[in-house]
Formats: sequence, structure tokens, C-alpha cells
Amino acid sequence: MKRGLYVGRFQPYHNGHKSVIERIADEVDELIIGIGSAEISHDLRHPFTAGERVLMISRALKDINIPVYIIPLEDVKRNALWVAHVKSMTPPFDIVYTGNPLVIELFREAGIRVTSPPMYRRETLSGTAIRARMIAGDAWEECVPSEVADVIREIHGIDRIQQIAKTD
Amino acid sequence: MKRGLYVGRFQPYHNGHKSVIERIADEVDELIIGIGSAEISHDLRHPFTAGERVLMISRALKDINIPVYIIPLEDVKRNALWVAHVKSMTPPFDIVYTGNPLVIELFREAGIRVTSPPMYRRETLSGTAIRARMIAGDAWEECVPSEVADVIREIHGIDRIQQIAKTD
Amino acid sequence: MKRGLYVGRFQPYHNGHKSVIERIADEVDELIIGIGSAEISHDLRHPFTAGERVLMISRALKDINIPVYIIPLEDVKRNALWVAHVKSMTPPFDIVYTGNPLVIELFREAGIRVTSPPMYRRETLSGTAIRARMIAGDAWEECVPSEVADVIREIHGIDRIQQIAKTD
Amino acid sequence: MKRGLYVGRFQPYHNGHKSVIERIADEVDELIIGIGSAEISHDLRHPFTAGERVLMISRALKDINIPVYIIPLEDVKRNALWVAHVKSMTPPFDIVYTGNPLVIELFREAGIRVTSPPMYRRETLSGTAIRARMIAGDAWEECVPSEVADVIREIHGIDRIQQIAKTD
Amino acid sequence: MKRGLYVGRFQPYHNGHKSVIERIADEVDELIIGIGSAEISHDLRHPFTAGERVLMISRALKDINIPVYIIPLEDVKRNALWVAHVKSMTPPFDIVYTGNPLVIELFREAGIRVTSPPMYRRETLSGTAIRARMIAGDAWEECVPSEVADVIREIHGIDRIQQIAKTD
Amino acid sequence: MKRGLYVGRFQPYHNGHKSVIERIADEVDELIIGIGSAEISHDLRHPFTAGERVLMISRALKDINIPVYIIPLEDVKRNALWVAHVKSMTPPFDIVYTGNPLVIELFREAGIRVTSPPMYRRETLSGTAIRARMIAGDAWEECVPSEVADVIREIHGIDRIQQIAKTD
Repeated sequence: MKRGLYVGRFQPYHNGHKSVIERIADEVDELIIGIGSAEISHDLRHPFTAGERVLMISRALKDINIPVYIIPLEDVKRNALWVAHVKSMTPPFDIVYTGNPLVIELFREAGIRVTSPPMYRRETLSGTAIRARMIAGDAWEECVPSEVADVIREIHGIDRIQQIAKTD
Repeated sequence: MKRGLYVGRFQPYHNGHKSVIERIADEVDELIIGIGSAEISHDLRHPFTAGERVLMISRALKDINIPVYIIPLEDVKRNALWVAHVKSMTPPFDIVYTGNPLVIELFREAGIRVTSPPMYRRETLSGTAIRARMIAGDAWEECVPSEVADVIREIHGIDRIQQIAKTD
Repeated sequence: MKRGLYVGRFQPYHNGHKSVIERIADEVDELIIGIGSAEISHDLRHPFTAGERVLMISRALKDINIPVYIIPLEDVKRNALWVAHVKSMTPPFDIVYTGNPLVIELFREAGIRVTSPPMYRRETLSGTAIRARMIAGDAWEECVPSEVADVIREIHGIDRIQQIAKTD
Repeated sequence: MKRGLYVGRFQPYHNGHKSVIERIADEVDELIIGIGSAEISHDLRHPFTAGERVLMISRALKDINIPVYIIPLEDVKRNALWVAHVKSMTPPFDIVYTGNPLVIELFREAGIRVTSPPMYRRETLSGTAIRARMIAGDAWEECVPSEVADVIREIHGIDRIQQIAKTD
Repeated sequence: MKRGLYVGRFQPYHNGHKSVIERIADEVDELIIGIGSAEISHDLRHPFTAGERVLMISRALKDINIPVYIIPLEDVKRNALWVAHVKSMTPPFDIVYTGNPLVIELFREAGIRVTSPPMYRRETLSGTAIRARMIAGDAWEECVPSEVADVIREIHGIDRIQQIAKTD
Repeated sequence: MKRGLYVGRFQPYHNGHKSVIERIADEVDELIIGIGSAEISHDLRHPFTAGERVLMISRALKDINIPVYIIPLEDVKRNALWVAHVKSMTPPFDIVYTGNPLVIELFREAGIRVTSPPMYRRETLSGTAIRARMIAGDAWEECVPSEVADVIREIHGIDRIQQIAKTD
């Protein structure tokens, strides 16, 4: 049995995440998805709450055929404690999938196996780019799974990010 | 669509929780299970980590036929902020199932509907009683779903709680 | 100009506090009232929020003839930092009025003048005794200024403390 | 009875705040002034402690003819919890006066009425502009009520901000 | 090169600690002494600050002939993070000396070697017993190294603990 | 007896620190070295843990002929509390050596004597410059005492900072 961990902020969950997860799902028996900076919301880089992100990801992954654990991870502020924090909040895992240089370093120092999945169309499919579209009123729905677009509409997510983006 | 929230500490998840959840599952379309005091572990009242509890509950509920969201909830220490914390960490919910008098009061003051499910054989099926059995070396497996017993064995949970129970 | 500090938890503000404050008001030009453990509410020893306590005290002191500053003070958990915390949250003060042995020690070590006002009918006029009456359904209104009783009724304070006092 | 809430950082309290508060005071029966980022001081954007700001505002408002509650509000870091935090620290309020887009969004999501008062000569009467004058040694007294200028002199506020502004 | 870690609260550092450390010093090349609950002081169980405890231990160990690192360790509140916290605050170590059952469990789960040194006259030489003597005004100097007694006198430690022990 | 305090972040401890400390050591009987931002590590401005920095400084100062106390100081985030925090974590001190304008202001407001030691070749011997060399793969060993270079090699410090400096 091989259980993998994939961590992201998912602001929002988009097609790039989806393509990475589909490839990881072919390699592992069970997958943990850690939602980073879970406690942060309602700002321009983190518009959505952890609960809203759980809902996006659960809906988008409803047809995946392996067990998936979706876990909000609050920040601990101290890099030296982060791996212990993640381990305490998740089921045990054998391998970590991440491209983040700091996350790679932290897990390596802890003696945990790390591999970097290729990102899919990184230049257009980043959270930063998608949030910029949302703020500008440009099309963003094509960048995310349709279930995610539904959730964002249900929670009036575009109204929120556009309001926050106003200047005083 | 009706989504319910059920919050517990699940130290460990036992047959009393199971019987309550089965009844709630008949009343709602989707169920959120909040794991309280998620950040606490390795003490006599909270022997298991949030991740271990996620694993217990996920395995025990693998055949449930409605969508279930299992969410670790770290404490916020301030009762006046707790409802806002729970709401930010979970998908939106319509009703809360709890028998805890404080939790009832906090959700009521927030204008959220609360109902108290009957507890099943409360006197023997409490976390306190089960942890006492584990420490004493008495039989505890019959009090929990078999999947939970498997998880506790996999993580050497009895060794842990018995070690912590020693005196200096 | 002599400005005094008086710190309490005021759960609730009662006639004992009132008699002490009336005497202090004769000795100082301005009075700071610090509301301790401001962040704690909705538990049996701390049923009321800081905001509710601000309202009780403001109403009860509406006819006092010196300037009064009513300041919620969140706990800092570390005794060695508490005096610095209080000083940062309040206007500068010359003297502290308190009977609490730890508070006396902390201000003395910081080189700040402390004096202990006599408590008025301590045995019956304590927050502990008044909260016990509220929970038991006994008469409590006579222990507090009438303006405080009005506030407690407005916020449904008795319902709250009685609900929290139930057992699961 | 209509009670309004107005939140600012008041670093320092200036004539722009004064003109806004005078207009709000005509619309409400009681006014709560929340001092944001109360725990921050001694830096270039937040030179004054909460206690010093309480003193500035209290003195400047000494002749106002409605009840005013001046409440330091420590940050909670999590936007999703901020409204619950403010509500717990203040008397109950019916309406919020603010021009801050995030604050508007947070109160709106909580179902609380918000209105945006017009700012008075915003370009010159901002805290940022006044602090820049203080650091540069330019005239700043004309931007604040005379009682505030007195407090800043009493606490040697200009010495402090100029010292902090030095480079190592 | 073998570096050992010994953790205690040292409220105060006494002859029992001294005898344990002398034995450890025969087995290691370098010794780290971690001062637990470093941030807590001025209460009956933790009368002394971390800095005062650093001074006691440094003076008492001034003639030890191996390198010693004396490190205050603030609590992290979460057992699952404690080992990572200790590792980040101390030089790397090969072995932990402790008799505390929880500390044994936490280091064992982290794969770090632990050994339990025999305690010396535990019944009389405990911090609890010594603090009780200090409060009661009984002789305590004989329980601690003379350098520690000197430090406690210099900081007026007996006055402090006796003041804190008074009832309101 | 005159005890001095010198505070720095020591990321890493370098020859500039060494020359300052040698001059301070001529003026005091005992020296406290406070390691600021102790809890931060594994980022570009703070690559090393507090424990690693303790080891660097201890080794580099092994031949100093006065008692030295090396104390990790976690941040408290609130400037108004920082002096009280430092005082609680260190043995009592008579004088502070620092060039930092904010630190000067905070100790002065607390009535503690401060003096600013001249920095040695500040332009090349800054932590910022040395970390930039480490990241770029340039020579850095000449900027630090040889014992510090040994520690950085032992803990694979260059690998760490270069990994963290990569872009995702």
C-alpha cells in the first residue's frame, strides 16, 4: 500500500492541479490532499476559506477511483516545525509530491521521499493568473473544473474578490 | 440539499459515534464530520493525532452512501470565535447535530439550527471508558468498528497510551 | 494629575466593584478600569464577553464625575510580560488598586506603586457567588447595580449561563 | 436606540477622523470607536500604543454629547474570524461606518449593515501623510485636534517616531 | 563525539539535578541542558524566569569540564510538534536523558535514542518539595547548590514566591 | 559586576559580530548574547535554526575569558512587550550594546542604558552580503570565524540555502 501527499493552497483548485492529481493517482493507492494556509481567507491572494476549498476539491474529485483524504492545514509559521505539523494532521504517507523548493528541502531534511510532478501549462494555469482574471472581470471558468466554477458561483466568490480588490 | 455538521473529538472513534452517524445519514444529503481539538495528541485524554483520527473515521465510513467531509478542527481557545472558525473550515451547513451544551449555545447565538441526537449506550461507549480499558490492558476492540481497531494496531496506539500513562 | 488603574474580570460587574470604585474615585483625578481575561466568554467562570462587560460598567458609571477609561485586556499568558501589556493598552497611570497577590507582585517588580483597597462584603459579593445564584435560578439582581441587571437581561445572560451549566 | 461602530487605526487620531465622527454622531444614539491593530506600536506605520490612542481620542471627544465607547481591538490575523472578534469585544451595534473595502465585505457577509462615510480631505489628512511630516520634522500639529497634539507631546511621540525612522 | 540532551523545568535547579548531570557528564562529550516551560514564571509551580534559571544553572556548572549548552525552551503546546521544536532550538544531539514518560514516548516515536537516568533521592529532592519549603519559610538552601541559593537570594526569590502564595 | 547584553540574528555569526564582541568583552564582566528571531529558520533571510546558531557562536567563542550566556530569543511580535520578554529570558543585565534604532528606543523607554558599538566593515560583513555569497556559490568562508564555517559544513548549510533559493 502506497499513500502519497500533495500539498497546495488551491486558491482556487484549477485544471493544473487536476492534471497533476490524475497522474499521481496512477502511482499511489491512496492520496492525501493538504490544503495549505487553511486559516487564511478573504484577501487577494487567498480569497477562499478552507471549507470552500474542501468543497471545490471534493466535488471535482468525486469520480476518482482511489481513496482521497482532503485535509485543511493551518500554517504553523515555523518552517522547522512544519513537517511534524503535517504528519500530525494527516494519515501516514510514503511519498510527497511537490515542486516547491522549500517543501522539498523540509521533507528531505526529515528523511521523507519527495518527487516533483511536472506542472501542466504553468504559465496560464496558476492561481495568480486566475485570480487576476476574476478581479478584472475576464473569463476564468475555463481554467477550473466545472464543479469548481459551480462552487465559486454558489458562494458568490467573484463578488468577494472584486470587493476586496477595491481601493479605499 | 441538506448538509449537516457533527463535531466530536473521536479519541477514538467508537460504536457510539457510528450509531449516531448512521441515524444522521438518514436525515441529510451530505455530512461534515468535524474532528475537534485536532491539534492535541499524545496525552491521556487525547492519545491520537488528527491524522490518525481521520484515518479511523474514513475507514469506518468507507461504505456510507452519502458524501462525507472529514475535517480536523484546531481549537481557537475563544468560545466567541469558535462558530466563525468552524464555518471557515467546513463547507456551508444547514444543521448541527450535537449534545454538548456549550456547542448548542454557541450555534444558537449564531442563529444556526441545532438538534441533539440521542447517544447510544453512553455509559459504556464513551471515549473516557474506552481509553481507561486501553490503559488497563482490558478488552477495547469490541467498542469500536473493526476498521478502527485495525488502525489503532497499525499505529501502535495501545503502546503509546500505556507509555504516556506511566508515572515518572 | 493622578491617574489610577483598577483591574478586574467583572463577571459580572457587581456592587462590591461599585463600592471600591467609588472610594478610588475620591483619590484620583482619572480612573482606568481594565477588564481582565477580555477574550474569554461563554464559560461558567467567564459567561460574559468583553463587550458586554464594557456595556455593564459604562452604564453603571454613567454618573461618575471623573474621566473613566474602560479597557478590555486580553490575557498574554506570560506573567513576566503582563505589566508591559497593560501599560501598552492603557493611558499612563500613577497607581494601581488591587488586592490580587500576583498583580501586586508583578507591578511591584516593575517599580509601580500599588495599593490594596478594602473589599466590600467579599463573602457574598463575589463573582463566583453571583454566578452560582444565576445558575441555580436564585435572586442575583440585588448584588449588581440596576443598570447591570438591565444589560444582563437585554443580552439574555441568564439563559446563556444556565445552558452552559447543563451536563452533556 | 441606534448604536454605530467606527473602526480605524488612529495612528494618530486626526482632523479627518474628527469630521467623520461628528457626522456619525448626528445619526446614532451611541458610538463605538474600535482602535484596530491595538497590539502594534513602535513601528513606522504604528508609532503609538493602544493606550496612547485611547488617550488621544478620549481627550479629543470630551465634549461629544452622546455616549462613546473606545475599544482597543487586537488583530486576530484571520479575516474569517474578525467580525466575531469585534462583536465579542464591543457592545452590540446596529450599523458599521467604514470605507475599507475588506471591512465592508466582512460585515456584509455576516449580515450586518454597513455604510461608507465620506472622508474629509483624504489626500492631506491621512495617517500616512501625518506620520511622514512627523518624521521629516515638518508641521503636523495643524492636522490633529489640539488635545491630540498635547498627548503626542506629553508622550514624546515625535522623538519616538524619529528615532525609529533612523537607519542602522 | 557524543552530545546528550537533558530537559527539565529547574524550578529551581537542585541537588537532584546536579547528581544526574554529573553522571551524564561522564558519558557524553558535550551536554545540552534544555530549560522547559521557559516562558512561564511568577506562579507557584514556576516561580523563576528562564533567565534566572539560566543564571542558576550556569553558576552551579561553572567547573564542569565538558562543553555545556543551556537553552531556554518555550512550550509549543502541541506534543506532536515538541521534538521538532527542541531539535530546532538546540545543537544536534545523539541521546536524550529523561525519566518523563511522555518525553520518552515522543523521542522514541521520532526515532531518537532515550535513556532514563536514576533520580537521586527523589522523594525529598523534588522541585515541588523545595518550593513548598520556600513558601512555608522552612530551610531550603541545603537542597540546592550554594551558587543557586546565592542567585535566589540576589533576585529576592523567596519574597516573590511567598507573595504569590498569599490568598486574595 | 557589570553584565552586558548584545542582540543579533546571527544568520550567520560572522567576523563583524566577532570584532564587536571582542570589544564589548573588554568592557564587561559577563556577556549575554541574545539570538533574535530564534524560531525562524529555513528561509532566505533566516537559513539557520537557533540551535545551529548557538553551536556556531559557542564554538567561535570557546576561548573567550569571561562568562558568556547564549540565549535564543523567540519573537514576541509586539514591540511594547519585547523588553519585558528579553528581560525574562536572560540573566539581569546593566547595559545593552546595539546599533538598531528600534532596539535603542525600546530599551531607552524602559529606562535601560544603551550604547552603540561601532560596526566592523559593515558594507562587506553583513549577514545579507554573506547569504548572497552562499546562494551564488561565491566564497563566504573568509567572512566568518573558521569554527562557524565548520558548523555550516557539518549541517550542510550551503545545500539548504541554495535549495531554498530555487524558484518553483
